[in-house]
Amino acid sequence: MAGFAHATAVDPVGAGVYSADLDSGWTVGEGLNGGYLMALMGRAAVAGGPGHAHPLAMTAHFGGSAVPGRAEVAVEVLRAGRFASQMRATLRQDDRSLVHALLTLGHLGDEDPRWSGAPPAALPPVEGCEPIPSSRSKRWPMRLWETLELRMDPATLSWAFRQPNGDPESRGWLLPESDEPFDPLMLLVALDCLPAVTFQLGSRGWVPTLELTAYLRALPAPGPLRLRQRAQLVQHGLVDELCQVWDARGRLVAQGSQLAGVRFPETES
Amino acid sequence: MAGFAHATAVDPVGAGVYSADLDSGWTVGEGLNGGYLMALMGRAAVAGGPGHAHPLAMTAHFGGSAVPGRAEVAVEVLRAGRFASQMRATLRQDDRSLVHALLTLGHLGDEDPRWSGAPPAALPPVEGCEPIPSSRSKRWPMRLWETLELRMDPATLSWAFRQPNGDPESRGWLLPESDEPFDPLMLLVALDCLPAVTFQLGSRGWVPTLELTAYLRALPAPGPLRLRQRAQLVQHGLVDELCQVWDARGRLVAQGSQLAGVRFPETES
Repeated sequence: MAGFAHATAVDPVGAGVYSADLDSGWTVGEGLNGGYLMALMGRAAVAGGPGHAHPLAMTAHFGGSAVPGRAEVAVEVLRAGRFASQMRATLRQDDRSLVHALLTLGHLGDEDPRWSGAPPAALPPVEGCEPIPSSRSKRWPMRLWETLELRMDPATLSWAFRQPNGDPESRGWLLPESDEPFDPLMLLVALDCLPAVTFQLGSRGWVPTLELTAYLRALPAPGPLRLRQRAQLVQHGLVDELCQVWDARGRLVAQGSQLAGVRFPETES
Repeated sequence: MAGFAHATAVDPVGAGVYSADLDSGWTVGEGLNGGYLMALMGRAAVAGGPGHAHPLAMTAHFGGSAVPGRAEVAVEVLRAGRFASQMRATLRQDDRSLVHALLTLGHLGDEDPRWSGAPPAALPPVEGCEPIPSSRSKRWPMRLWETLELRMDPATLSWAFRQPNGDPESRGWLLPESDEPFDPLMLLVALDCLPAVTFQLGSRGWVPTLELTAYLRALPAPGPLRLRQRAQLVQHGLVDELCQVWDARGRLVAQGSQLAGVRFPETES
């Protein structure tokens, strides 16, 4: 994951502040992907924290769009505990605070679950899945989808061929950059990289995330990640999306929930 | 909802700080219920915010247990927008910061959803449901369950009769205090008031919430709320719980996700 490690590198500049160079390869339209920003903020929090290696729970509220270039992350330890610690992280760019996050840090393991009620999403094998057509991305260049090796279940890509199927679900594979296991922070990207599920309901344009909560549950095994994202309710210009990520052994390794703004053609001004 | 309104009242004491008297009627064991604390913090945030009436998304990370008595909530506007605003809120008691929250505020409506894929949970009618037996609560007095009018689906209460059924789901009704519609902030309590679903897997004792994210989606219609809470994964001493709340018209009005600690008898020291 050299690309991801480089793109999310942070440098301490003192007093709990880390500088970063936001990478244009991880953009959605003009702004950086939310999961990417959370991964970078999570790296700064772990570096500035009391010794816990991973975010167990991380929440970000997005107040504005960050663009490629210099940025800084300020982190603060709220409570240092034995099993878990709480931290705050804020991403700033040009003196504006754009992303506000709270984190509970701890240590991820890789044992088998005690109980699981979330079997892996049914998906065609990788070779039966497809990249997201780049022809759809002229108005909103999706550099993120060029950087990541995403392979979508064709059944959930019908919106890209002007045939939204009315079922707000996206499913796909996220392939690793190398034979190395995924960096656990990459799970934060995995929770926010699928096409907005409301495209299958006919929504248009950007679906800006207001809030994203991520639970990282276990260290992922080497191999591709299996992703599923689904909406429960579209109302009042907002949609929720629940996301699940399984590793190559079929274990649920990350869970996400987000609330995002959504527009439909007849409501456009 | 006089009881709830009184129990969650906050008084401004200047500089974005609100004082509160945490009410012993809303405790779980010795500490206050997390949803109750979020409701009280949400009230302070709305009072100290830029004019938005409701939390749309609210996230709390819990660093310690708050007990009945005096406390204060410090709120800060992070960004004031037209459609939504971001705020931070911190609950302090005895100079310790115990609960850290981020909120996205806005205005809830009560129109019908554009799309819903979450039909109301199947439940017996209220008269076919049961209060949680108080005989179970000697070691951990659950004042919350005496204060709230909860009526549980008996199928999800078997743990209380020493017959955990292996299915980590709780379902029930939350009845209103009066003919008035629920205060929307009560939805935050609704998302965190059901018995821990892991009791059905044989877990013991307190299931302390590390993180809770709430989405409020619409103003609830008058009448009882229908609740369902369910786990996806128990691993490494942690469990997630997804919660859904429907109003008396059958509309999904709130969604919650939490990560909590869990113990089983054989892992007790």
